[in-house]
Amino acid sequence: MSNDTTDFSLLIGPQIPSRTFKAGDTIFKQGEPATELYVIKNGRVGIQLGNRILDTLDSYDIFGEMALIDQAPRSADAIAVTDVTLIPVSEKQFLFLVSQTPFFALKVMRVLARRLRAANKVI
Amino acid sequence: MSNDTTDFSLLIGPQIPSRTFKAGDTIFKQGEPATELYVIKNGRVGIQLGNRILDTLDSYDIFGEMALIDQAPRSADAIAVTDVTLIPVSEKQFLFLVSQTPFFALKVMRVLARRLRAANKVI
Repeated sequence: MSNDTTDFSLLIGPQIPSRTFKAGDTIFKQGEPATELYVIKNGRVGIQLGNRILDTLDSYDIFGEMALIDQAPRSADAIAVTDVTLIPVSEKQFLFLVSQTPFFALKVMRVLARRLRAANKVI
Repeated sequence: MSNDTTDFSLLIGPQIPSRTFKAGDTIFKQGEPATELYVIKNGRVGIQLGNRILDTLDSYDIFGEMALIDQAPRSADAIAVTDVTLIPVSEKQFLFLVSQTPFFALKVMRVLARRLRAANKVI
């Protein structure tokens, strides 16, 4: 779940196109090429590797950012746990946000650091 | 080992103060409060949790950045595998670099993404 340091609600506005998924839908699969990250407008998303749940994300969280950072395929599956509405952010928008808003870059780093600490605890 | 996308050699200059450690020295320990990250000027550094080696880093790699990103204590031990020379980068310098040089922010994100992919493979 997002907290004040990883809340990306500023990327969500009434005019920004969104995409919806039904509970149980696959949003993306491990190994797929990646062209965008997502901000969760509402709903819950699970990040999974096989049957293992790596993370569960809610409104104002982001996911799918890793593939934009290192241009590698999706590292895990993203599944709609409930009905969800997502705001896609393209690589171009992502690079613009990183270059124009240092606060955005720090927030993305905090998301990655949080996931890395969680992964290191599991190992 | 660093590659072109995670090479921080630009942070190393002849006038920048460095710090040296002997092979076997502990650079920092898990749980310690953190005030700086490090660029390796030369030598090799191991990142360890107990007896488990999480990563081995060489010249122009960075480490210790997580604690500056989320203000949490050190998440692992850093050990000098060989004699090493490090360039410390303070939190103030780090935030300045993130805000002034988007390329730096992206490089740090790539380091975190690489470590997260490696951790997820191990799990």
